[in-house]
Amino acid sequence: MASFRKIVNDPVYGFITFDDELIYRILSHKYYQRLRRIHQMALAHLVYPGAVHTRLHHSMGAYHLMCEALLELKSKNIDITPEEEQAAKIAILLHDIGHGPFSHALEHVLIEGLHHEEITLLLFEQLNREFNGALELALSVFKGTYHKSFLHQLISSQLDVDRMDYLTRDSFYSGVSEGVIGYDRIIKMMTVRDNDLVIEEKGVYSIEKFLVARRLMYWQAYLHKTVLSAENMLVKILERAKMLARTTTGPFSSCTTLDAFLRTEDSAAFIKNNLDQFCALDDYDIQSSIKQWCEHPDFVLRTLCNWLNDRKMLKTRLQMEPIEKEEIEAMQQKAAQQLSISPEEAKWLVFDGIALNKMYTPGVEQIKILFKDGRIKDISEIEYVLINLVKDGPVKKFYLCYPGEILQKAEF
Amino acid sequence: MASFRKIVNDPVYGFITFDDELIYRILSHKYYQRLRRIHQMALAHLVYPGAVHTRLHHSMGAYHLMCEALLELKSKNIDITPEEEQAAKIAILLHDIGHGPFSHALEHVLIEGLHHEEITLLLFEQLNREFNGALELALSVFKGTYHKSFLHQLISSQLDVDRMDYLTRDSFYSGVSEGVIGYDRIIKMMTVRDNDLVIEEKGVYSIEKFLVARRLMYWQAYLHKTVLSAENMLVKILERAKMLARTTTGPFSSCTTLDAFLRTEDSAAFIKNNLDQFCALDDYDIQSSIKQWCEHPDFVLRTLCNWLNDRKMLKTRLQMEPIEKEEIEAMQQKAAQQLSISPEEAKWLVFDGIALNKMYTPGVEQIKILFKDGRIKDISEIEYVLINLVKDGPVKKFYLCYPGEILQKAEF
Amino acid sequence: MASFRKIVNDPVYGFITFDDELIYRILSHKYYQRLRRIHQMALAHLVYPGAVHTRLHHSMGAYHLMCEALLELKSKNIDITPEEEQAAKIAILLHDIGHGPFSHALEHVLIEGLHHEEITLLLFEQLNREFNGALELALSVFKGTYHKSFLHQLISSQLDVDRMDYLTRDSFYSGVSEGVIGYDRIIKMMTVRDNDLVIEEKGVYSIEKFLVARRLMYWQAYLHKTVLSAENMLVKILERAKMLARTTTGPFSSCTTLDAFLRTEDSAAFIKNNLDQFCALDDYDIQSSIKQWCEHPDFVLRTLCNWLNDRKMLKTRLQMEPIEKEEIEAMQQKAAQQLSISPEEAKWLVFDGIALNKMYTPGVEQIKILFKDGRIKDISEIEYVLINLVKDGPVKKFYLCYPGEILQKAEF
Amino acid sequence: MASFRKIVNDPVYGFITFDDELIYRILSHKYYQRLRRIHQMALAHLVYPGAVHTRLHHSMGAYHLMCEALLELKSKNIDITPEEEQAAKIAILLHDIGHGPFSHALEHVLIEGLHHEEITLLLFEQLNREFNGALELALSVFKGTYHKSFLHQLISSQLDVDRMDYLTRDSFYSGVSEGVIGYDRIIKMMTVRDNDLVIEEKGVYSIEKFLVARRLMYWQAYLHKTVLSAENMLVKILERAKMLARTTTGPFSSCTTLDAFLRTEDSAAFIKNNLDQFCALDDYDIQSSIKQWCEHPDFVLRTLCNWLNDRKMLKTRLQMEPIEKEEIEAMQQKAAQQLSISPEEAKWLVFDGIALNKMYTPGVEQIKILFKDGRIKDISEIEYVLINLVKDGPVKKFYLCYPGEILQKAEF
Repeated sequence: MASFRKIVNDPVYGFITFDDELIYRILSHKYYQRLRRIHQMALAHLVYPGAVHTRLHHSMGAYHLMCEALLELKSKNIDITPEEEQAAKIAILLHDIGHGPFSHALEHVLIEGLHHEEITLLLFEQLNREFNGALELALSVFKGTYHKSFLHQLISSQLDVDRMDYLTRDSFYSGVSEGVIGYDRIIKMMTVRDNDLVIEEKGVYSIEKFLVARRLMYWQAYLHKTVLSAENMLVKILERAKMLARTTTGPFSSCTTLDAFLRTEDSAAFIKNNLDQFCALDDYDIQSSIKQWCEHPDFVLRTLCNWLNDRKMLKTRLQMEPIEKEEIEAMQQKAAQQLSISPEEAKWLVFDGIALNKMYTPGVEQIKILFKDGRIKDISEIEYVLINLVKDGPVKKFYLCYPGEILQKAEF
Repeated sequence: MASFRKIVNDPVYGFITFDDELIYRILSHKYYQRLRRIHQMALAHLVYPGAVHTRLHHSMGAYHLMCEALLELKSKNIDITPEEEQAAKIAILLHDIGHGPFSHALEHVLIEGLHHEEITLLLFEQLNREFNGALELALSVFKGTYHKSFLHQLISSQLDVDRMDYLTRDSFYSGVSEGVIGYDRIIKMMTVRDNDLVIEEKGVYSIEKFLVARRLMYWQAYLHKTVLSAENMLVKILERAKMLARTTTGPFSSCTTLDAFLRTEDSAAFIKNNLDQFCALDDYDIQSSIKQWCEHPDFVLRTLCNWLNDRKMLKTRLQMEPIEKEEIEAMQQKAAQQLSISPEEAKWLVFDGIALNKMYTPGVEQIKILFKDGRIKDISEIEYVLINLVKDGPVKKFYLCYPGEILQKAEF
Repeated sequence: MASFRKIVNDPVYGFITFDDELIYRILSHKYYQRLRRIHQMALAHLVYPGAVHTRLHHSMGAYHLMCEALLELKSKNIDITPEEEQAAKIAILLHDIGHGPFSHALEHVLIEGLHHEEITLLLFEQLNREFNGALELALSVFKGTYHKSFLHQLISSQLDVDRMDYLTRDSFYSGVSEGVIGYDRIIKMMTVRDNDLVIEEKGVYSIEKFLVARRLMYWQAYLHKTVLSAENMLVKILERAKMLARTTTGPFSSCTTLDAFLRTEDSAAFIKNNLDQFCALDDYDIQSSIKQWCEHPDFVLRTLCNWLNDRKMLKTRLQMEPIEKEEIEAMQQKAAQQLSISPEEAKWLVFDGIALNKMYTPGVEQIKILFKDGRIKDISEIEYVLINLVKDGPVKKFYLCYPGEILQKAEF
Repeated sequence: MASFRKIVNDPVYGFITFDDELIYRILSHKYYQRLRRIHQMALAHLVYPGAVHTRLHHSMGAYHLMCEALLELKSKNIDITPEEEQAAKIAILLHDIGHGPFSHALEHVLIEGLHHEEITLLLFEQLNREFNGALELALSVFKGTYHKSFLHQLISSQLDVDRMDYLTRDSFYSGVSEGVIGYDRIIKMMTVRDNDLVIEEKGVYSIEKFLVARRLMYWQAYLHKTVLSAENMLVKILERAKMLARTTTGPFSSCTTLDAFLRTEDSAAFIKNNLDQFCALDDYDIQSSIKQWCEHPDFVLRTLCNWLNDRKMLKTRLQMEPIEKEEIEAMQQKAAQQLSISPEEAKWLVFDGIALNKMYTPGVEQIKILFKDGRIKDISEIEYVLINLVKDGPVKKFYLCYPGEILQKAEF
């Protein structure tokens, strides 16, 4: 009964099975375990209290879908060796390992000049060294340099298992049941032609549904106006903290590693030289620093921290037209008066932004459909498909954040 | 503890509660109980084996959603009296009572010149007489003559509880998980303006999703090519039976009532005079007659019955362009040769048809959206909504049914 | 993509995959397709309107669990050849093929002297002949003569995939959510020792839960008092019909095959010689005959048929003590008076019975638990398990059925 | 549109509605919002990665079930005034507000001499003051001094909505599907007699199922051996930190509030005088301190923190018999040798404990069943119920935690 086997309960898929010892050792590595401490949906839980799941759980889920997809392809006689299978599974398990605290919400704030995917690659290579090169093939699949491109496409493309898991999981945990997609049906429709992942024609409506569900999840969850507000507040807090930290000495936050990140002028170089320090950083450091900064002498920092901590979000207005510059300035002025702060400080509490949500951009994106007669078309070229019917181009909304209660009082 | 109360388990909603004695008496009436013997999705179970649920279960489900919707509206201070509430619940419970065997699949075949909604009205009025006029208000809500139009709109409109239940239920029982809609969210977004049902703006994406899910359910389930084939075979069987029955005397089917329907020249008049006989007819009579006709001397009738009974469906080709007349005739000829039948008979086994699936027709259909500032717009007029983005017009597909195995052999 | 593959949507498991051409041919055989016309839960839908699923769907589901179980065992290095795998899958697919109309509800009424499992065997052997012996190994697995007993145990034992599917499916369709079992966890805990199916110790609570869920499903669904009433009425109807049919000539029911079964003195012999006729019989014949008998001259037959058809069930009292003979007789007498019928006839409307529900009978039943140290124990011998704590012995309840409304009136 | 209304998505129940302004203000209070930062299942997510839900979400869920239960009781004509309804809802919303970091896992470690329920009362009274006495009735319902005892029983008894929510929610988020209970059916079966909550007899099997599911959740989740290990490690870490903190000065952890708690000799008095400081403490402080202590000079503290942080749990053996004192001492000695630490220090890494899981203790616990004839019995007195059949007494298991890898090496 020798064979290796661990099963993990997952409310989304039932059970996730790990039956490869190398994969289990990667799973047990502290770089991977750290993902337990990074929320998958950043601050969306302030609107959807159930959405507290982690990057660790998401990447396990994506791994599970990868297993299903590979099983499916093999049953369709696609040639995949055991080594390639292991590599694809490792690659998906590690695809998010470079995410910093609060993932996308803080991307480019705490860490400038280095995309999370580049950090993933640095950590991936580091693990490969620790495992004596056993992750070489996985690395080349991850980077897309391996000749069987469909393996990379399963990890990163318009219909990869990453998206399929995060849509399914985010929808499940947030309770936005309308985000549900037919991931199992999409997987059943996958096959390979000329090393490319393609979808059999009868799966077309499932993909249409997938794209509409993604669009809905963006407006309803990821770009929900209260989530936008919370995540913008978080960004402002960190930016303010950086500004202040650089003009002071001594401990600034509750965590020396965080201090180092706040103060470095070149976070890209800093990370490259201090991978372990980067890995020591997670949502908990940010969250507990925010709690400490609730009593910081700086008005802006203290105020934003208190509000975010007690879920007193800035009010957000979302509209189709750009916010007028005059309106923003008028609001900033009112806020400055009302709170007895400088106009400069008021800009931290009244600001605008853009929310972008596109469904599919033919030409840039690609979902290939395989017809019974062997022809392959991009989904956007099929006459009866919704995507084709939709006038393309991204959809933009504009938003304005401001302290609602205070400005309301100001009206009187 | 006086109050009346019955609860019914429902896998879809958990429990359905009946707490009104009059409603329970209607539920117990044999006209209503008869709906147990009519499949909700006709022959779709030949493709989706789980889809064996009944019209009775669907109308109970729609009743449940009506209860939820009324509760919601009342909590928003919409004025609804207890009598109106009871009336709306009765009306939805009875909205499908006039459906004949296999509902839509056999509509206009067995019963000509009388739409199922007219029969519903006849039965509704008959019940009203039996209950001494207690259903008067329900009738006027059902007919749409009552001044609070939103009550009628809950029963019959673009977003009525009927559609919400059948999409939810059909998707649930068939296992086509992608047909799932956010019925609970849509109901939470309902309110009333000027006696019209409207949806609050933040429900817009749920409705978008509802329309896309409906579109998907049509292509994937209701108009699935094997379902089209089975239901067309059923139609041909009944038409052939009518033709034959009218030229013979003596028992034709296993059921005297069915014989009467097969032979009457004026089914509309016949039903009006024989409501009880109409109610004696259900899927079971058709299904057991089909089994008997498996040994009928007429080749066409016998063949179609055997094939349908043993799930040997005609092969179906679905395409965007109309089927060429020449191709059909050539196929009919081949079939005639191969089976040693006349070209006339072959037309019963080789035939074409049209499948129609439209998403939303602005102007004809109406889903009214209420904005925060009080404005009301049709959903198709909102700039950022998918429906608006979609080039309108119904989507047609053309199909051809033919005996696949036989014609295949004919090729050699 | 050469390989054979069909997928079927299932609301319970998502998708069921058939990837073996022989199995698909069996599935398409009319003997198997006939199971579409036999309800899995007989008349339980009169209480649980969702419980209209079929024997066909159940056996597909059991087949799916068999696939999962075999996959699991093979991943644990249990030696199972492709031929054995195919055989086990065929055996489970056919395990219920011998069920007659309304399965257990009518067992031993319509067909005397022949258990449904014997008929299954007859049909299995017939199919084996039709498929030129390709089902030989499947047959020996089914009969339990094959040396790898665990294959047979997967089909028929205390923890077989048959039970796991019917509990899961019946609970799903009826909406009795409490009947849910952790089938996937139980399967993950399966392994084999000395050719016997055993469960790893950490699965013990899942099995405890399985036994309690089964107990609950019996009391709440299978032996629900209204279901007992309906199924007893069905039995009385068929017994009465047999009695009457044997004293008359000419068509009795709406179906000549049914007539033959009603009139034969030796149904066992009759079936053996007329397998195809047996297969022509299903729920539809019974149901449509009941509708016809609603106008039969015999008072008892007519009355029971009308009541069952319109869901006017006999009232049922369920209690822990046997029903006193005097009470039954007094009730029968009252019913006779009230309805102006003979005491003999009244016995068809007032009668008692016993409902039996046992949890586990150590010694007779066997669920083997494998400990980490290699020891194997029967679950009932493990000190901390509920089964061990429960005083054993079956649990009996006694019931009395009678026409409630009529006897109520009689009281005045 | 006047009326107040907020809806919150919940993956478990769909939507939770808040339609009372006072309740919404309580919900928005920072004392309540703080529950976002306390995990409902402490460290169980180390075994069940999905189990990361919070106390905030649980208490919202319990509030939802309370709404359902009150609706049910009112529909059965139980007299409940709007004020009582509001009070019961507030009481359940606040029932867990006194939980400290990691709830039960750290109870009596960080805070000695004060049960979390006493802290809840302190905070409840404080809120009542802030809301000018508006919570008076809620307080008396919470304390059980209000004469309608059933309101208190809904909050705290064998079948309260608290348990119903946590079993349902913990089972949902952990993916232990077998913990599912029929909360909706139990609620439908509730009624009131002599001010006591009782369950109608036909709900008996649902309750049996509820008790078995609870038993299973204890063994499978709350007392899972790896969870036991993690939570014991957490306790040891905090105890060690207290010990060390008291012998040093200067910042000990990353959080001054935590330091105060580590150092106070009388935490009960400290909390009473510093409610706001107590509320400033949550899981995040503990978790981020643990990360910091990973580099603490004390070997024991540093080691436990590193292991817990990287999910290298102590190995745990669970058995029916007490662990022999000799065995523990031998193991401690080995560990001391292997790690070059003192025997005293080794006791922090090798220790035993007891896990207790009882199903129902007649006499102490009470679930009252109402029979049709008006009699009321405790569920343990009903002859056919499992609880009655089970030999009572709690079930104990004994466990031993030790550093597996290190001692394994020690064997050589």
